[in-house]
Amino acid sequence: MNQPVQTNQLNPYAIQLCALGRWIVQRQWLPFGSGLFSIRTSEHSALFTTADKDKSELSPADLLPYYWPTAAQTDPAKAIHQFLYQQSPQHKVVLQTHDLQATVFSRLIRADQHLFVGYELQNLVAVSDSQRQCCPLAILDPQNPEHLLQELQQRFEREALPHALLIRGHGLYVWADSIDSAKRYLETWQFLIACELERIKASCHFNS
Amino acid sequence: MNQPVQTNQLNPYAIQLCALGRWIVQRQWLPFGSGLFSIRTSEHSALFTTADKDKSELSPADLLPYYWPTAAQTDPAKAIHQFLYQQSPQHKVVLQTHDLQATVFSRLIRADQHLFVGYELQNLVAVSDSQRQCCPLAILDPQNPEHLLQELQQRFEREALPHALLIRGHGLYVWADSIDSAKRYLETWQFLIACELERIKASCHFNS
Amino acid sequence: MNQPVQTNQLNPYAIQLCALGRWIVQRQWLPFGSGLFSIRTSEHSALFTTADKDKSELSPADLLPYYWPTAAQTDPAKAIHQFLYQQSPQHKVVLQTHDLQATVFSRLIRADQHLFVGYELQNLVAVSDSQRQCCPLAILDPQNPEHLLQELQQRFEREALPHALLIRGHGLYVWADSIDSAKRYLETWQFLIACELERIKASCHFNS
Amino acid sequence: MNQPVQTNQLNPYAIQLCALGRWIVQRQWLPFGSGLFSIRTSEHSALFTTADKDKSELSPADLLPYYWPTAAQTDPAKAIHQFLYQQSPQHKVVLQTHDLQATVFSRLIRADQHLFVGYELQNLVAVSDSQRQCCPLAILDPQNPEHLLQELQQRFEREALPHALLIRGHGLYVWADSIDSAKRYLETWQFLIACELERIKASCHFNS
Repeated sequence: MNQPVQTNQLNPYAIQLCALGRWIVQRQWLPFGSGLFSIRTSEHSALFTTADKDKSELSPADLLPYYWPTAAQTDPAKAIHQFLYQQSPQHKVVLQTHDLQATVFSRLIRADQHLFVGYELQNLVAVSDSQRQCCPLAILDPQNPEHLLQELQQRFEREALPHALLIRGHGLYVWADSIDSAKRYLETWQFLIACELERIKASCHFNS
Repeated sequence: MNQPVQTNQLNPYAIQLCALGRWIVQRQWLPFGSGLFSIRTSEHSALFTTADKDKSELSPADLLPYYWPTAAQTDPAKAIHQFLYQQSPQHKVVLQTHDLQATVFSRLIRADQHLFVGYELQNLVAVSDSQRQCCPLAILDPQNPEHLLQELQQRFEREALPHALLIRGHGLYVWADSIDSAKRYLETWQFLIACELERIKASCHFNS
Repeated sequence: MNQPVQTNQLNPYAIQLCALGRWIVQRQWLPFGSGLFSIRTSEHSALFTTADKDKSELSPADLLPYYWPTAAQTDPAKAIHQFLYQQSPQHKVVLQTHDLQATVFSRLIRADQHLFVGYELQNLVAVSDSQRQCCPLAILDPQNPEHLLQELQQRFEREALPHALLIRGHGLYVWADSIDSAKRYLETWQFLIACELERIKASCHFNS
Repeated sequence: MNQPVQTNQLNPYAIQLCALGRWIVQRQWLPFGSGLFSIRTSEHSALFTTADKDKSELSPADLLPYYWPTAAQTDPAKAIHQFLYQQSPQHKVVLQTHDLQATVFSRLIRADQHLFVGYELQNLVAVSDSQRQCCPLAILDPQNPEHLLQELQQRFEREALPHALLIRGHGLYVWADSIDSAKRYLETWQFLIACELERIKASCHFNS
């Protein structure tokens, strides 16, 4: 059982994921011990961070192999990661973070998605021309993994999602085809969500 | 009298507490010279930080031994630390911090507690299954130590508190069975309080 | 074609611009891969940052030469940089940044400019005595480059602008006669915009 | 004329003041080139920072000697520093800073002072027992130096001020008998002002 650990030590992607963890914690997007990161290692496997590990102190040895299909996964966060990997072979990195703005935003918006309009930075996350004009961020309620996956399935069938979704009060999920892209999508979504939260809060004071 | 100081220099927990002080000050949760940290050294004693010492520059020699029972303690912060140590032998570290969000939150909420609902991170501080669904944060008014301790006694008899309480305008208290846990509870409560303050502030603008 | 790159490596202004990039990213005024910086190299040319490059990792080799007049420029950001260089030989540095406050502010203010009054720091950006009392920040809607340049032309003919303008949802532009001045104008405008956003938001709660 | 500069290089207080400048800029309480710091050198003289110098890069050679009484001082910031030194020989350090919260707070409060009540940290700045309960922060309008000094004189005759005052939109002034105390008063007032601004903003949403 030592082999996966030794392998990870030499896996450049595992090392990059640990570096990304430090960068994310530094920005205070991830309180101690929360969140879940993973990186694909094959068609049916990925390395996952362990629960309760401070993401600013990750080393490759803290990443554990995870294989699918599994029997019904009872941890919603792991179930979502697995779902995203199964959706497309292009999904190679998945990040779940907990920052103040995304958490508050997910609880204030009662609709099942929010449309972002008028920000130049939508261009950086859009997956279609129409999303450059109007970019939807899906917001799902926390629920048991079985129902959550059914709802996710419906969302992905309806339209391609722009690399992110929110679980109300339970974090922001971002996925990408590389660690660099994941970092970029995460930072862009943090920016867009923080702007939109502030804009809506302030808009009742202005223009009234 | 030099002996306690020399002992502290070799006490790994004292060194860890000083490191935690630097981490807390870095996040601006503790203006210069405010706050009180302590760490248990035996059934009836602990090391306390000295007043007015910048917590980003703590060294083990700045921690002074404190023994109980004492004659009536006139400093409310010290009285609360002593009370928490006397409640349970599992209480091994106590931190009092002053950050903007907790201070403002403690003054805005007029009830004697606030219930946190809908955050995944409640799991990290809950001490019972019901607190995972609905996690109460006690808020007490500042008062003389005698009345404060009576009220604290009543709160602890009513239910187990999730590792934290607020004194209105007088800081957040967090306790734990280790320095690592104290850091984790502190960070989680800072996150929950900041989210809830923002959520309540914003909720009148949304959904109206 | 290697020559420009080698030249940049020895160009002290290119090195300074890269250092300024790190400083700007550190303050989180520029999400990953967004923004455009440039520095004049002659009457009709400048070095421009490349799209998608993280501005915290700029090196002089990442700056590419750009010459004008060009055929109609289709990228609005580049068109604005070129316009500013053509306005005056004193314009030697241009920065486009995306920070939360300026982005939100640009979307909340519906007028085509906002007047800053009552801040001592207006003195640091004013280009006339009257601007020390009342300092206008122009706000333009995003539009195709042709219309944008027409509107910019009209703005500059109406009055001298105090080293900055906003494109609604598309960033803050700052220009100056040196890198040091650009840094100063940028920091001052960030301060003024953040203060004014907070002041307007809060003013409905106070004094009511 | 080289002598003062050389003297400053060996003046431990000048070196400490420069270190304090870096600490203040790091917290973003002082946009580039704004603010004025000084430290007393004798009954009738002090060292002043030069205008436009980035306070994060101060060296003792950037501090210039200033002697009083002077002919009528036309710079309001310098006039206030001189006034504070003349008030008491205990005033040995004066700092003027520009941070977002203090600037916005000074403009939102229309009264000529604001009373801070209910914060434990009032204890750290109070100069009398009554200020521990209710701590006044004076707020003056910017005006020409002559009128400003007359109004300051009246304020100081009315009561001892708790180490700080605000000029509306023109900065926070803090004074102390040492650099360590000045740092402490500055940090405490920044905390109190930020809390009170947030509390007043939020209070209309709560409890309504």
